[in-house]
Amino acid sequence: MDKIFTAKDLKQFTKSIFLKMDFSQTHAEIASDALITADLRGIDSHGVARLSGYVRLWKAGRINPKPKMEMSRQMDACGTLDGDAGIGLVTASKAMDIAIEKAKITGLGMISVKNSNHFGIAAYHASKALKHNMIGIAMTNASPLVVPTFSKERMLGTNPICYVFPAKKYNPLVFDMATSAAANGKLQIAERLEKPIPKGWAVDKDGNPSENPSELKLGGGLLTLGSQPEIGSHKGYGLAAIVDLLSGVLSGANFGPWVPPFVAFLPLAKNPVGEGIGHFLGAIRVDAFRPLTEYFNAIDTWIERFKASEPQNPNQKVMVHGEPETAYFNKRKENGIPVNKKVVDDLLELAREFEVSFSNQYAVNSYQ
Amino acid sequence: MDKIFTAKDLKQFTKSIFLKMDFSQTHAEIASDALITADLRGIDSHGVARLSGYVRLWKAGRINPKPKMEMSRQMDACGTLDGDAGIGLVTASKAMDIAIEKAKITGLGMISVKNSNHFGIAAYHASKALKHNMIGIAMTNASPLVVPTFSKERMLGTNPICYVFPAKKYNPLVFDMATSAAANGKLQIAERLEKPIPKGWAVDKDGNPSENPSELKLGGGLLTLGSQPEIGSHKGYGLAAIVDLLSGVLSGANFGPWVPPFVAFLPLAKNPVGEGIGHFLGAIRVDAFRPLTEYFNAIDTWIERFKASEPQNPNQKVMVHGEPETAYFNKRKENGIPVNKKVVDDLLELAREFEVSFSNQYAVNSYQ
Repeated sequence: MDKIFTAKDLKQFTKSIFLKMDFSQTHAEIASDALITADLRGIDSHGVARLSGYVRLWKAGRINPKPKMEMSRQMDACGTLDGDAGIGLVTASKAMDIAIEKAKITGLGMISVKNSNHFGIAAYHASKALKHNMIGIAMTNASPLVVPTFSKERMLGTNPICYVFPAKKYNPLVFDMATSAAANGKLQIAERLEKPIPKGWAVDKDGNPSENPSELKLGGGLLTLGSQPEIGSHKGYGLAAIVDLLSGVLSGANFGPWVPPFVAFLPLAKNPVGEGIGHFLGAIRVDAFRPLTEYFNAIDTWIERFKASEPQNPNQKVMVHGEPETAYFNKRKENGIPVNKKVVDDLLELAREFEVSFSNQYAVNSYQ
Repeated sequence: MDKIFTAKDLKQFTKSIFLKMDFSQTHAEIASDALITADLRGIDSHGVARLSGYVRLWKAGRINPKPKMEMSRQMDACGTLDGDAGIGLVTASKAMDIAIEKAKITGLGMISVKNSNHFGIAAYHASKALKHNMIGIAMTNASPLVVPTFSKERMLGTNPICYVFPAKKYNPLVFDMATSAAANGKLQIAERLEKPIPKGWAVDKDGNPSENPSELKLGGGLLTLGSQPEIGSHKGYGLAAIVDLLSGVLSGANFGPWVPPFVAFLPLAKNPVGEGIGHFLGAIRVDAFRPLTEYFNAIDTWIERFKASEPQNPNQKVMVHGEPETAYFNKRKENGIPVNKKVVDDLLELAREFEVSFSNQYAVNSYQ
């Protein structure tokens, strides 16, 4: 049974916890806003459900609540931000701000981040570009769970690629996708429902195809986008690698199998090849390429044309990217955010531990 | 039966044809170098096999042999190049040069191109960044052959994404992949061999799965990377869309179903939404992010570690991107380039038509 909370209440509570972790007001505001935005957009795996995980990382000393974030190297359009072990929600947001400032001047801004950790949903950071009429980019490497083509070893994270494009008549186009066939969160949902997972998502520890939603706990791995060599798994492997190289190798963060795990109970790699997790954030100023009015006409035409594309099945219309998340956002902004019972229990436990007010009474409503 | 030619002879012949088309010496040199590089790297579908196609486009007045390429708009790090209907092999190469020059100054250079046409293999252009210790990027939109998720209409091209990363001890990493499950060239090979294509590559005109290698000629479409919704076809759709937006919508070129076809016998869209085909080229200066020696150590470690990743099958080792193409390059540089009989006939026909010397005698050797 889920309980329903208003976004405002959930955010207030989340912010209080970050403040108790000794975050500054500004950083607690950004971190809680990033998590609640995920919940509002329907990405339940990356919202308040992660809060206790961040707390455990902080307890393990892997999140610095008062990071001094500084550019370790830069030129006019780009450079590297040292996150000083700050929470990824904040370091990536800061890097995006720097990218936007640089793009105002040169047309482009791209910042790699080292010495960071889990940054939440990529679209939160990339979307900051929109109000500046810029295209936003966000990528991150992540804990190794994904096997390269022909390998049975977990070498790459689900390494998402996110691009957002401003539009005028329509909502922005928001592309935000893991480079694995399925994100880890989808396996967790299947596990909760005790349902087998589709062929093409995972392999067991010997590299054989698996439909077991708990396979990752048994040493198995996720498959890359493309799933099988003959239908392009090497392309998903390539995309995950590009994200790893831009986020980790270019910045000076860890990469590949050395990327620190999100879960605090797993040990860090013994011989790290860099500092923390890496991200890559970018901003592209549209009017450096063509006049804004022309661009907006073109992208609105693009969106209209793709939405009008002939469906294979008349009952399933063709969508553009960002549509499902916008529908969630509008609904949840209005009606509140349903939170899974296990997550509510987690939050209540945090409330007790940090002596922050949070009660089941906060729930607006509950439903099955 | 294939015939084998030296790269030098093939390039000389190809260059002569471009000169007969009234290309400048410089442009004929670049265009022929791009095609022969594709053949050397084993991408037979994008080498001399395309020469007669470019000639037909030129005859149809769709390739301007003497383009005045100019930046239509720019800032310090980026902008748009108007290709003036020049051949894509040349306009993309020029845009990459501009991107590199901008990256020298600001750390980044990204150029969108409008009013262009087919640019050959993306890796040819992106790889120009390598000798400057830059990461190279190349993308292009292309003739609509690919159906979005839930659609049966051909809306997108095979829109490749290419990134190249310089390395020190090892060869550069070269990622160059169509965002469809399989590139068109793979269907053509299957057609020639009269073999069915794997499930997940194509659908018929009603959107049903097809294993017919000739399906595109019957109005069918290619599937995006991911092939099916439950294993991520919406991600391949998203990637193809990102390429289309950066190449077409950002530059002022055509996009989506309006992108002009490569084959000259197909008519142009009646109400074009832009000028020609669009590309997107980029250069990222590595030492704007971290010292070069650190980067090279990291990427060499990355390559070593991934090549040493535990294989699923001991007889099929794990590869890194660019390895197969480098193997082809070394072999063909040494032993010559095998050219399919049908393509040799095409070249002989061009030789007759343009009164350029080319003979079967040029073939070093022939094999089955």
